[in-house]
Parts: sequence; C-alpha cells; structure tokens
Amino acid sequence: MSEAARRPLRVAMVGYAFMGRAHSQGWRVAPRFFDLPREPVMQVLVGRSPERSAEAARTLGWAEVETDWRRVVERDDVDLVDICTPGDTHAEIATAALAAGKHVLVEKPMANTLAEAEQMASAAADAAARGVLSMVGFTYRRVPALTLARQLVAEGRVGEVRQVRCQYLQDWLADESTPLSWRTDKAKAGSGALGDIGAHIVDLTHFITGQRVAGVSGRLDTLVRERPVAESFAGLSGRGGAGRGPVTVDDVAMFTGELAGGAPAVFEATRFAWGRKNALRIEVNGSAGSLAFDFEDMNVLHYYDAREPARTAGFRRIVVTEPDHPYTGSWWPPGHGLGYEHGFVHQAVDLVRAIDAGEQPTPSFDDGLAVQRVLDAVERSAGRRSEYTEIPEHRRAAEAAAPAAADHDVPAPAGQSRGE
Amino acid sequence: MSEAARRPLRVAMVGYAFMGRAHSQGWRVAPRFFDLPREPVMQVLVGRSPERSAEAARTLGWAEVETDWRRVVERDDVDLVDICTPGDTHAEIATAALAAGKHVLVEKPMANTLAEAEQMASAAADAAARGVLSMVGFTYRRVPALTLARQLVAEGRVGEVRQVRCQYLQDWLADESTPLSWRTDKAKAGSGALGDIGAHIVDLTHFITGQRVAGVSGRLDTLVRERPVAESFAGLSGRGGAGRGPVTVDDVAMFTGELAGGAPAVFEATRFAWGRKNALRIEVNGSAGSLAFDFEDMNVLHYYDAREPARTAGFRRIVVTEPDHPYTGSWWPPGHGLGYEHGFVHQAVDLVRAIDAGEQPTPSFDDGLAVQRVLDAVERSAGRRSEYTEIPEHRRAAEAAAPAAADHDVPAPAGQSRGE
Amino acid sequence: MSEAARRPLRVAMVGYAFMGRAHSQGWRVAPRFFDLPREPVMQVLVGRSPERSAEAARTLGWAEVETDWRRVVERDDVDLVDICTPGDTHAEIATAALAAGKHVLVEKPMANTLAEAEQMASAAADAAARGVLSMVGFTYRRVPALTLARQLVAEGRVGEVRQVRCQYLQDWLADESTPLSWRTDKAKAGSGALGDIGAHIVDLTHFITGQRVAGVSGRLDTLVRERPVAESFAGLSGRGGAGRGPVTVDDVAMFTGELAGGAPAVFEATRFAWGRKNALRIEVNGSAGSLAFDFEDMNVLHYYDAREPARTAGFRRIVVTEPDHPYTGSWWPPGHGLGYEHGFVHQAVDLVRAIDAGEQPTPSFDDGLAVQRVLDAVERSAGRRSEYTEIPEHRRAAEAAAPAAADHDVPAPAGQSRGE
Amino acid sequence: MSEAARRPLRVAMVGYAFMGRAHSQGWRVAPRFFDLPREPVMQVLVGRSPERSAEAARTLGWAEVETDWRRVVERDDVDLVDICTPGDTHAEIATAALAAGKHVLVEKPMANTLAEAEQMASAAADAAARGVLSMVGFTYRRVPALTLARQLVAEGRVGEVRQVRCQYLQDWLADESTPLSWRTDKAKAGSGALGDIGAHIVDLTHFITGQRVAGVSGRLDTLVRERPVAESFAGLSGRGGAGRGPVTVDDVAMFTGELAGGAPAVFEATRFAWGRKNALRIEVNGSAGSLAFDFEDMNVLHYYDAREPARTAGFRRIVVTEPDHPYTGSWWPPGHGLGYEHGFVHQAVDLVRAIDAGEQPTPSFDDGLAVQRVLDAVERSAGRRSEYTEIPEHRRAAEAAAPAAADHDVPAPAGQSRGE
Repeated sequence: MSEAARRPLRVAMVGYAFMGRAHSQGWRVAPRFFDLPREPVMQVLVGRSPERSAEAARTLGWAEVETDWRRVVERDDVDLVDICTPGDTHAEIATAALAAGKHVLVEKPMANTLAEAEQMASAAADAAARGVLSMVGFTYRRVPALTLARQLVAEGRVGEVRQVRCQYLQDWLADESTPLSWRTDKAKAGSGALGDIGAHIVDLTHFITGQRVAGVSGRLDTLVRERPVAESFAGLSGRGGAGRGPVTVDDVAMFTGELAGGAPAVFEATRFAWGRKNALRIEVNGSAGSLAFDFEDMNVLHYYDAREPARTAGFRRIVVTEPDHPYTGSWWPPGHGLGYEHGFVHQAVDLVRAIDAGEQPTPSFDDGLAVQRVLDAVERSAGRRSEYTEIPEHRRAAEAAAPAAADHDVPAPAGQSRGE
Repeated sequence: MSEAARRPLRVAMVGYAFMGRAHSQGWRVAPRFFDLPREPVMQVLVGRSPERSAEAARTLGWAEVETDWRRVVERDDVDLVDICTPGDTHAEIATAALAAGKHVLVEKPMANTLAEAEQMASAAADAAARGVLSMVGFTYRRVPALTLARQLVAEGRVGEVRQVRCQYLQDWLADESTPLSWRTDKAKAGSGALGDIGAHIVDLTHFITGQRVAGVSGRLDTLVRERPVAESFAGLSGRGGAGRGPVTVDDVAMFTGELAGGAPAVFEATRFAWGRKNALRIEVNGSAGSLAFDFEDMNVLHYYDAREPARTAGFRRIVVTEPDHPYTGSWWPPGHGLGYEHGFVHQAVDLVRAIDAGEQPTPSFDDGLAVQRVLDAVERSAGRRSEYTEIPEHRRAAEAAAPAAADHDVPAPAGQSRGE
Repeated sequence: MSEAARRPLRVAMVGYAFMGRAHSQGWRVAPRFFDLPREPVMQVLVGRSPERSAEAARTLGWAEVETDWRRVVERDDVDLVDICTPGDTHAEIATAALAAGKHVLVEKPMANTLAEAEQMASAAADAAARGVLSMVGFTYRRVPALTLARQLVAEGRVGEVRQVRCQYLQDWLADESTPLSWRTDKAKAGSGALGDIGAHIVDLTHFITGQRVAGVSGRLDTLVRERPVAESFAGLSGRGGAGRGPVTVDDVAMFTGELAGGAPAVFEATRFAWGRKNALRIEVNGSAGSLAFDFEDMNVLHYYDAREPARTAGFRRIVVTEPDHPYTGSWWPPGHGLGYEHGFVHQAVDLVRAIDAGEQPTPSFDDGLAVQRVLDAVERSAGRRSEYTEIPEHRRAAEAAAPAAADHDVPAPAGQSRGE
Repeated sequence: MSEAARRPLRVAMVGYAFMGRAHSQGWRVAPRFFDLPREPVMQVLVGRSPERSAEAARTLGWAEVETDWRRVVERDDVDLVDICTPGDTHAEIATAALAAGKHVLVEKPMANTLAEAEQMASAAADAAARGVLSMVGFTYRRVPALTLARQLVAEGRVGEVRQVRCQYLQDWLADESTPLSWRTDKAKAGSGALGDIGAHIVDLTHFITGQRVAGVSGRLDTLVRERPVAESFAGLSGRGGAGRGPVTVDDVAMFTGELAGGAPAVFEATRFAWGRKNALRIEVNGSAGSLAFDFEDMNVLHYYDAREPARTAGFRRIVVTEPDHPYTGSWWPPGHGLGYEHGFVHQAVDLVRAIDAGEQPTPSFDDGLAVQRVLDAVERSAGRRSEYTEIPEHRRAAEAAAPAAADHDVPAPAGQSRGE
C-alpha cells in the first residue's frame, strides 16, 4: 500500500440490496487492510429507480448513479462490473459487460438455468482470451476457516476424501406469514433453497475437496405452498396488492450423490429449520482424519487427525484467527474474530490481485457452471423419482485430470503485530 | 419395591457379547432403582462354548449355563427369552420361544431379511393373542432426552413435523486394518451400517415423530472392500487364518425419503466418520419449533420454541436429568448424568411392567418390521439407481390412522430427593 | 473374574440416602465389569429407623439391616465399613471402625472440622501400620476424563502447571422456597457450598496437578438467609413444624490461592447458579498446554497442546471412552459414554484391589485432611477480611518432596472387543 | 443518511497501532450502515515518526498527518480527538484536548494511575459544562450480545443479581520467548493483565449489572519474570539490543469482591491460558435466571429463564443477529454474524449521536474512573496480603442512587430487509 499513485480499478455495481451492501463493504474496506496492487474506486451504482439508487449511493459511498446497466457497460471509466441483481438478469448483463471488455464479478447463483450458465462460461472463455476476467461470488470460499479446510485437504491432512455431508439450514421462511418475494418466485430466482443456499454447499464441496459432484439423486419439497403477497412485491410483479400467491420454488432440497473420485456425499438445503439462522455446515471424512465446520461459529474449524494415538485424539477446535491462517493475519490479533462481511473483503482482495496479475480468479464462470450442472441434475433427478443422474462432464474431467491438482492459490498469510 | 415376595420373572439370555453384557446390566440394575411389579431373575445364559459361556455367566451374574437355546426354550422355569445373538439367528429363536409361550426380547435389527421380519411379526401377533408378549431392543428410545423429544412432539411443542434429519456416525471401521468380523459379513449381519446403526435412526424417527417412513431413495457404498482376516474370526468362519477377505456389506448408507404425513427426511449411517465415536444425531423441524440431539452429549436435548419472541429465542440446552423428565427421577439429582447402559435398564423396567400388566410393550415386533421394511426399501432403491421406492404399508396405515395418535406411554416421572 | 471361590470382602454401609444409593451401585456393579481379586458382599446396611432401613436394604440389595453402627463395627463378619452419613458423624464412626480392625471408606467431606480430620488421619496412620486401610470418597477422581487429566499432567503434556481455575456450579438452592435441610445446617454439614462441593474442586486440584493448595484468600456469602422449615426436617431437628429458619452455612464460596509450587489458582463453589445443574469445571494452564473439563459433558476432556503449530492447534475434544483410557476399556465401545455413578464403581474397584494388595488406597485420610486444611484456611481467611492465609504443612511438604512424584497408580486399561 | 449536506465531525486520531486501526475502521464504516446526524471525517492522524505516520494515514485512509498532538489540539478544523496511544499519555492529551474544546474519545484503560484518572474525570466534568464531551473506549459494551445482556438484566429477566463470575483469558504471553513490549512495561502500561484485559471485565460488570464493584480482595502474579528484548522495543526504550529484560507487570490478576448491592463476584485476567485466544467470559446469576457469554462465540448470548418449568428449561443459545437485537438490524440478515471490529463501529455511531444531541456518551470518564478505582483497589489489596479493600465511593454512590437506574440508552433496532 506504499506507492503514492496506485492505478485505480473503477467499479460499477448493479443492484444495491443485501448483496450490494455486502459488495460495497468489500470494495471499501479491502484496501484498508490488504496491500492491493490497484486501488478499487466505487465509481457508479446502477439501479432502476433514480431516487432509491441515489439514496443507496449516498449511503454506501458510490460516486455516481446510473439507471440503465447498458449505458454503464459502455462507459470508458469503468473497469469492472459487479452484478448483484437477482439471477434472471445475470446472463444478459455479464455477457454484455464481458463483450465490452469489462471484468465481471457476478453474484451466485451464476444463472437461473443451465443454458444461461453455459453461455456465460463460453463468454468468459472468449473474454479471458482477450485478458478480460470474470469471477463468481461464492464468498464462503473466503471464510478463513473454510479456506483453511481446503488447504488441509490439499495437504493430505485428512488423507483421501471418503465422504462428505453438507447442510445449509436457515429458518426465515419457516413462518407461514412471511410474504412472497423474488426469492420465492421461480421466474426471478430460478429455484428456492436449492439455488439460493444449496448452491453454496455444492461449491464449497468442490472447493474444499478439489473434486466435483459427478452424480446426484435428489428431491425437492415445497412445504408451504401459498404465502401472503407483500405490498411492495405486489407492486413490482403486477399481482394484486392483497391476498395470497403461490410459492413456485422448493423450500427444501435434499440430495445424495458422489464426487468425481467416487466418495459418497449427502446435501440438504432448507429455509425451514426453526432456530438455525445461517447454519452452513460441512463435514469431510477422509482416510486419515476429518474436518467439520458450522457457519454459526464461523471463526472455528474442527479437525480430527486420525494419526494421533486414540488416547489423546479428538476434534481440535481451531480458532482460525492466527497470523498463519488465510487472510486473518491482515486483521486483528488471535481470537478477535471476523464476521460475515469479511468474505466480501477477501473476495475483493483476491479479485483485484488476479486482475492485476492477469490471472484467472476463482471461482471462475467455469466453476459457477459446474455448480449449475449439479443444481440442474438435482432438479432433473427430482423430476424422475429421484433417479440417480450422472453429470458426465464432471466425471470425464476428473478422469482426465492429474490427481489432487490445486486450482486456487490461497494468499500467503501476512504478519500482524499487536502493538507498536 | 416394598412387597416381600414379588413374583419372579425368570430370564434366559442367548448370547453374551457386547449386547449380552448390556442386557445383563439392565436386568441386574432395574429393580434397584425402579419399583417393579415382578422381580427379574437372571436364570440362564446360553452360549455355544461351554467354557466361555460359564465364564460369562460368572462374570455377568447368571445362575446357570446352557449351550443349546432349544433346550432353554422348553424349560418350565424360564419366563422370558432375551435374544442377543447376531441377526441371522433371531427369527428362528424368537418364533420358537414365542411358540413355547415365552415372552421375547430380541435385539435389533429384528431380522436380517424382510421375510424373516414378517414371519416374526406374524408369530408375535399369534403369541399376543395368547398373552405372550414380545419387544425389540431399540434401546435409544429410552435415552431420557429422546423420550422427552417424543413427548414434546406429541404435545405439539414443535407444531406439525415438517422435516427430519438423522445421522449415525461412528468411526470404528475407518481404519483399513480393522479386521473382518460378523458385522462386515452379509450372511451374519444382513447389512452393514444400514442395519447396524441406520436401523436405530429409522426407529427413532418413527418413535419421535409418531410417523413411519413411507418412501425412500437410497444409496449404499462400500468404501473399503477388503480387510484382514482376524485369527478368531477366521476360526469361526472356516476361512484361512491369514490374508484378506471381502467386506460384503455397506460401509455407508445415505437415503432421503418422506414420512407418512409427507415431511421430507434425510438419513445417513456410517462407520467411517473419523472422530465421531457414537454420534447419533437427530433434528426435527416443525411448524412451531425444533428439536436437536446428539448422543455424544446424551443427557442434553436442544429445543427451539418458535413462539418465543425472536429477541430471546434460542435453542434451549435442556439437561435431561430433572425429576420431571422421563426415567431420570429414579436415578440421581439434576446434572448427575446417565450413561449408555441406562437405556438397557429402562428397557428392562418397561418390559417387566408391560408383561405384568398384560399390555403390548413397545417397540413391538410390528415396530421392528416397520424398520425392516424401510431398510429393505433402501436396499431395493439402491439397487435401482436410487429410484424412489414406496413403502405402501406405511402410507396406507397413516391414511387409515387417527392423526397424532400416541402409541407409547412414557412412564410417569418419580420424585427424587437429595438427602435424608 | 475366573476363579470359582474368590475371597469375599464383606461390607457394612452406614446411611442409605443419596450417597448410600450411589455406593450400593458401586459395590453391586464393580465385579460385573472388572476383574476383582476379592468379591464384595453387600452384608449389612445401617440406619436409625428399622423400617426405613429394611426397605432401603431390600431396594438396594443389602442382606441384613442394623440400627446401631457400634454393633456393626464389632461384628466378625464385616471387613469394611462404608460411611455415607452426614459429616458430623464421620470421625466417630471411622475411628471406631479402624480401631476395630475394619477397613474404612468414608464419604467426603471427610469431617466437619479440622480437628476431627486430624484425629481421623492419625487413626488411619495407626491402622495402616496394622494393615487396616482407609479411603475418602472423592469419586470425581475416578471420572475417566479427570483421571486422564491427571495422567496427562503427570506425563508433562501441559508442561509445568502455571495456573488453575475451578468452579463447581449448581442451582438447587437458587429457589428461595427450597426448604432447610441438613445441608444448610452448620451443625450437621460443617459448611455449605464450601464443604459440600468446594471440597471436590480442592481435591481435584490436588489430584490433577499433584500439588496441594498452600495458601488461600477467601470469602463466603450467604445469599438467602432464611428458608422454609420442611416437615421432615423440622421433626428431625426439633424445630417447630412451620415457619422459616436460618441458613447457617455459606451459599457461595470464592477463593484465590496458590499451589505449593507457586502457581496461582481461583475457585468458586455455588448452589445458586441457575441453569448449571452440576457444572464441576476445572481448567489447568501449563507452560506447554492446557486442559479443560466440565462435568456437564463428563465423558469429554479438552486438551490443548501448545507444541502444535498454531495453524492446526486447538483444544482437542477427547471423547474419553477408548480402550486406552482409564477404566473405560472395561465398559462399552468408544462413544458409549458413562454416567455419574460409574465413579462409584471405579472407587469400589480400586479400593478392593488396594485392600487385596495391602497397599494404601487413594485418596487417603491424609489426602482428606489436606482438603480439610484448605477449607479451614478459607474459613479463617473469610473471617479476617480475606487476608491471605498460609497452609504451612502443604508448603513444607512440597519443599521436602521430590518433584512431580505420582502418588496414585491409575489402573491399566483393559481391552474391550465389540463383538463375538 | 438522507440529507445532502450533513455537518461534518472532524476527527484527529493519535496513535495508529492495533487500536488505531480498529478506531479507523469504526469511523470509516459507521456512516455506511447507520443513519448518523453528522458525518465523521478522518481528518488527521498523529504519530511521532513522519514516515510511518504517513504510511499509516495512506493505509487507513486519513487525510493528513501530524507529528505533534499539541498542534492538533489547537487546530480549528478538528472537532474530536481520538486517543489510541499507550496509557501513560492519556491524561495529558485528553485534558489538553478538552481544555481546547475538543470532544475526546480515549482508549481504555483510561489512565495508568488513579490520580490521572481522577484528574481526567474532573477535566471531563468541567468540559461537559461547556458542552465538550468525552468517552472511554470500552468497546465490548457494544458487542450486541453484551448490550443485550445489559438490557435483559435491566428488564428484570434474571431477577436480582446474586453473583457474577468473569474471566478474560488470552495466551499470547504464554510462550516464554515472546519478547518484552510496552504491554509488559509498568511505566508504559501501568499494569499487565489487570489493566489491559481485567479493565474490560470490570467495566462489563458495571455495565451489565448496573452496579459498581464496591470492594475487592486481589492477587497479582508474574509467571515469567524475564523475557527477550526485541530489536524494535530495545530501540524505543534505550535498553541494549540483546539479552533479556524484566517483566514489570502482572501476568495474572485474580480477585474476588462484591458489587455495591452486595452480590459476590470473582474475576480473573490472564495472558497465559494456552489455547484461549480471546475468551472474555461473563456469567451473571440472578434470582430468576442467568446469563452467560464467551467472546470466542461472540454472536451468542446464553440465557436461562428460571421461571420456565424445569422440564423444558435450559440455557437458550440466542444468536444475537436479529433485527430486534441491539445494533444488528443495521447489518445483515439473522445468522450472518459480526466480528471484533463491529464494536468500534457501534462506538463511533453512539458517540456521534451523543455529540449531536449534546448528551453525555457512555462510558463516560466517570465510568472510566470507576474502573480505575477497582484496579487500584486490586493492586492495593494484592500488596496487603489480599486483604479486602473497600471502594467507598462506589458503596456510597449505590446507597445514594435510586435502584436499578439505567444510565445508557441502547439504540433502537432498525429494520433490515433481506431482498429488494
């Protein structure tokens, strides 16, 4: 961070709701704690309503406002387009931005359909050939405890991966009086728990194990089939301002499957688990140990080393806040934990560094497409009495690949001193 | 416990390994802490080897030894046959004992095949008509925290059951050098993780929710396909005393499914989860709350009441050792927790009381058959690319039944004072 | 357990309330799971009321009843006297029994006053010279996780002990309507939380660290000064059968201090911690690691090894149920945890073995006296504005002793197989 | 946040190490998530070294640099002086700034000596009469779970406070090779664990219970008496650049005491608890319930309501991330937890609002003085064989005060919607 005049990286962000607020915090804070080769500039915020967009820009700290993303994509003073809108708009905006030579960060799920995802991955490949880079916002990869999990698997600390269990449990739809929103609308969101939170645990499985899910058997359930129509939502969607409307997405997604290397895995995503607020849980069992994580205790990774004598073996509660841990050395002393938004800061850091280096950031659109293939296979399986459904691309890729190839370089830890 | 001359209940136990030791402790301790209408007498222990059986009888406190269960079944001085052998012998012993007018307690899984289980359930129904009673040893029903879980569901404390997730995680086969045993032999054990520990979580789901699993989509994996042949096992089975032999059962069973009332559920049983020693976990999410349990903290039930204001709502860590809790009032003061074997004491208590009252104890052979149907459906589904497989008997029974009928009377808590 | 005619060890137990029930379970179950050199015989139960004693003997399984402990002490057919009465009677019974040549097990606290404890220790030393042995019932030493804690300290796994923090939190007096009992009566109980539960954490500190508390600064508080007089208690004590009476003991004891080696320590005992049912907690911090335990999760010991690289270091949650762990190999497979009463079984095992070997069992009356000295020093300090109060005997003993001498041999683990 | 031209609040920050980084994040982020009446401006950073200060200003985002705090205090374009230097400089800077009409935020501990603290509190009172306000940086008050703890106590949810136990456990000095720093130097830091982290748990006790500690009995221990001299520190302090030097502060502080209302309390602060990274723990037991918190799980408050029937009572694990919880409604959806630094954001929010309203922010210098009195009493007690040492000002204040007066208004929660 020492040079006086760092080259700027001018960002345009489309959308300013929950994800827009989180991305803004990422761009704002990243250069304050990490030494970045380029200086992110929060140039322009894009939203349909001029008034609401202007207010969001003031609050979130964006310099300008625009109401049409198409104009922004054409601007010379924008280097990167950050897409935080619902999934039905991702493909169009991302492909246009890439075509216009803008780097792209797109929120997950990358797309609402497999066809869109394939188109986007293709566009990303074309753009990469021209030095234009793209990334998907699976930020949980950058929770330090989960990055550490990946490192430990890659280092062989659990041996060969034998099985995986993942759950993503929330409860914000468990109340039947919670109204309809774009997240319960198949046209907007593509799917329900499956795409919203199931996508995360599929991506994390890919990330942590280094293997893709190669086949699934799934079921999707909608537990509450009708909900009240909220005023604001009614206005947006043209439905009447009163009464109830149908939920058109899944409330619960459950699927079993196997990784490309053959390990069985089981997944569940639900927004109906009363009392579980954001319990993203993943457990990996290998031939030489195990890992366990729960986002409700996000600064901790549990690690069992089976090579220990049984007498003193036990899951180690690693508080992932040490200088040697991924990302954490740039923050606070040990034990002074991070929060949800820090993943967005780390995402900004890694993306800026990759762009500066001219290297492909991860997760790439190809990684996003991989998740989309799994979600698509779950939906197809669920539509065919849960019949096991292969994902041939993932099986073939695994067979072709060198074993245990790491595709993501974790940033080296930086030292952190406590006092002067 | 006050009357001087209580009528005895003379027990013959077949088998004396792990389960035999646990059942012996049940018979021995039950009358010391609970007021029983009949006095259990540990009359005769049955084992094939006269020497080893005699030693086991001395150690465990049985009065006599017998080497042929057929002779025992005919003895006039035996009231109850307690079957603790591997599953391949259950059907023959149980049906013979019932035919001879002996009450029967049989360890789980009730049988190795669905056909055997059906035959046993039929024999049990015939016997019950003659006042001869039978019970299956799903002792986890009698862990106080799990009995309380059932009570809370039955009382509506979680509302309508919406979904269930169950895991039974152990790690004793994770070491590839662990030798073959009868538990890895399909001929002896019927199945692997599925029947051994998966049976427990299916039964607990039936017990706690009051609903049976009505359809499943399953997969079974054998992760380590060959293991060393242990000396003793080699001797027993006639295989050579050296080298390796095949594992003929599943190491991991994963299945999704639905309860008779339509709620989705997900299950996993594994003996490969390094670091998880006996992690029997069950979580129930209802329309008004949730329950969560992990046997690794067996005296605790977690309960979330969604009717609480969000500001002070949270999973309550109920330490299930109060006088008002099931069974615990007969033991120690609050906080002085119970252990694994106490379920076997409670099982003996409930069985003695049911026999004395001439009432059907639970879980009945019909309950055992229900579990067997689910295991069988999982195996069939796993053999058909995980295709969803209905269990029509359970669906029909649910449609015929009055809703939310409780089938198991939990014993009333008894007071416990701390001092003189 | 193999020999046909093992020499009996005939036990007389005085008192049959909470502790009497626990001790009975110890004598009953010990020979069923452990290979003992002598066979405990539950010969005679002693209580003042003939009727109530007879009922207790029937329930708990004692062969005979006696109403005067003096007669029992003289009987030829009694080898050991097990004293489970309130503390005010311990000294008289124990010294008489030892004088009569009976081995003695006495519940904790060993005595109500330091003078009594000194007299008892002196009597025990005399008796030991004649081969008559004695032991104090600090059973928590025999919770496997706490025995393991001691082993790890003795093996240097935490380095030099640097500091200790202990808490014993219960809540059964937090309700102001809980009536008076002998436990709230200084004449009967000697002290309140201090002697009842504070004694345990002092003894555990001695046991685990191998060092005695050499000085303290204490405070004692009585939070609820009057309580209702219960019917039964009123009868016993001659107070009127109605109204309220004074609490004459401490409700909360807090003290800081130092071990003989100089390490600071902090202690708290309370029966007013709403929601903590039996939270006996101890944490030891050494120069090379830490240990932590909470009885509310009694099968688990947490161990931090500071020699691990920080990146993968963390408190290990050791589930103390392995064959290699103290005592547990004689019970169940890993993860099938023990309960409160198992400490009493282990106590019986160790005492029978020590008597057979003619060796001093631990904790000895000298160990009990050491605890009493600490409690006495706390009371004296509390009476002198918390002024630091030395325990010169403990300081001198430490200076005289060889460093790190282990005074308690933990029984070797026995193997445990899962199946036949 | 809606008005276009909000009046600025121009901040000068003195010091830029650990605390300076945290305060900077507070000023930077506060207006982005909270609606503030004035806009904080990060005007000038003050440090002795021009080069290092300039680099810090660039990194942390301060507009200008100054090397002499005296000049800054006189500047017209500074409204508030934020003091993040070691404690030996606080009194001089703070009193000068207040005299010059600048609002002051000073890091804790407020001062190194009681005399300095009294002088500062007096200066603050004078300044307040002129509308110049001051605050001490006890940021843990603004961890949402701890703010909620205070609210629940104030609302009577635990009844009358009966006892308190607090620990602050770290391990960063447990390694004997950790070098000397200003934090181990009495001249710079005033004291060791006592002032550094013990101050926090004293303040939190005051904050949560609404009562001040009115007397203490303490002990202070230095466990490692010599440490290596680090290069940089050697340079700063003029000591030789090699070898070892003495630790002149306490490593461990333990004290018992009582609140002004009479409730006993026990405290421990240590930097030697291997494996505990930042375990700030507080438990409050009242007549109607209990609260428990551990900063290692900082988004959770445990609450036991003793008015619940025992059958379903248990510590509730409240995930303090709901819209109804203090501060959290301005951040993320439930379950998306906050981190260490968020307390600094909340501190900035509350201070800006108080200044705008012309109201005394909390904790005031008087609150800081109260903590200092307790620390001073601990040191005096420790120097007099732990003799109980009264703090008469706190006793008198309690006797004079109306009972249960709340002195801190918690900001009303703001709504947070999940989507557009």
